[in-house]
Amino acid sequence: MLFCYGVRTHPRTQARLNYCCQCGAAVSLRVPRGDNLPRYVCDACGTIHYQNPKIVAGCIVVADERILLCRRAIEPRYGLWTMPAGFMENHETVAQAAARETLEEACAEVADLSLYALFSLPHIDQVYVMFRGELREDRFAPGAESLETALFAESQIPWDALAFPVVRESLRLYCDDRRAGAFRVHTGTITRGPDRELEISLD
Amino acid sequence: MLFCYGVRTHPRTQARLNYCCQCGAAVSLRVPRGDNLPRYVCDACGTIHYQNPKIVAGCIVVADERILLCRRAIEPRYGLWTMPAGFMENHETVAQAAARETLEEACAEVADLSLYALFSLPHIDQVYVMFRGELREDRFAPGAESLETALFAESQIPWDALAFPVVRESLRLYCDDRRAGAFRVHTGTITRGPDRELEISLD
Repeated sequence: MLFCYGVRTHPRTQARLNYCCQCGAAVSLRVPRGDNLPRYVCDACGTIHYQNPKIVAGCIVVADERILLCRRAIEPRYGLWTMPAGFMENHETVAQAAARETLEEACAEVADLSLYALFSLPHIDQVYVMFRGELREDRFAPGAESLETALFAESQIPWDALAFPVVRESLRLYCDDRRAGAFRVHTGTITRGPDRELEISLD
Repeated sequence: MLFCYGVRTHPRTQARLNYCCQCGAAVSLRVPRGDNLPRYVCDACGTIHYQNPKIVAGCIVVADERILLCRRAIEPRYGLWTMPAGFMENHETVAQAAARETLEEACAEVADLSLYALFSLPHIDQVYVMFRGELREDRFAPGAESLETALFAESQIPWDALAFPVVRESLRLYCDDRRAGAFRVHTGTITRGPDRELEISLD
């Protein structure tokens, strides 16, 4: 059924690989038989090295209508503010990843997690999965990757010192929903257009 | 802030790697400085080989209250039924991945995609992102990975011949929601417990 395929072009979808991680032979970039995308393939042992987007799990942690934010102690965006978020690891659920990042970055426990937003960032091959939840026992402190942690009322959020567009967009949606009195799950895309301008679209 | 870390054990979270994909030297499995999980690290060039869960994007495609299913022409679960779904690729959004899989597996175009369910499958390091959408122009046909494609009313769904638990659970939720007259976004976990029994939990 060839008419189903061949309709896309695929510029630079794969990060450069040189050697096979299984046998150490040199790899080549080509479309494997039965596939429709170029992959790094090992002709010595047959391993196909697939590359796929990564999930970043994060959490809007709330205590008495205030939101827990962390000031980044690492690059990129050292010194700017974010909610706890980071790469999901193998052998955990998305909600566990969001709770783990909250523990690691803000030494805080979060309860009653609800899915809040799903953003695709196709220009950097990431998918952000944002939850909202309640801070437990009002305890938080900077983790190893944070300079400081603090609770912010909406009027206090450092809008001009947030680390990433996806952080700003998630907090903006959250504050809008809270004022409207109803939370719903949001989905959207944040990417860079051909002119390098950031484009944010909500579904 | 050591008390934030070290609380987990991490058995076999990484698939075995032998060589560095950048320089071809042998790699070793150890916890990199500043990290808290074992990774395959190249001591020759410094590359850290992270491994993370993969996203499977799928779609419940509906036409006149009937659901489009595909009978698998590939392993695993050859001959069993599924909705269109497959691994998300780099440089696309999750919704684009679901629409692409629908085109590839059922030669069908889908419109008005809405996020429907997010399932973590931590035992196989996958996250399923399911959408629901409308079939366009009532056209569908088996793609290269399908033996046949068909539209099913709820009473006709081959419940005993579905390919995966996540397929059955998504269809069950969809049919329940439709009967109740209200769709909401579902989240949950499907995994194997210590006794190898399948455990399904919804948040």
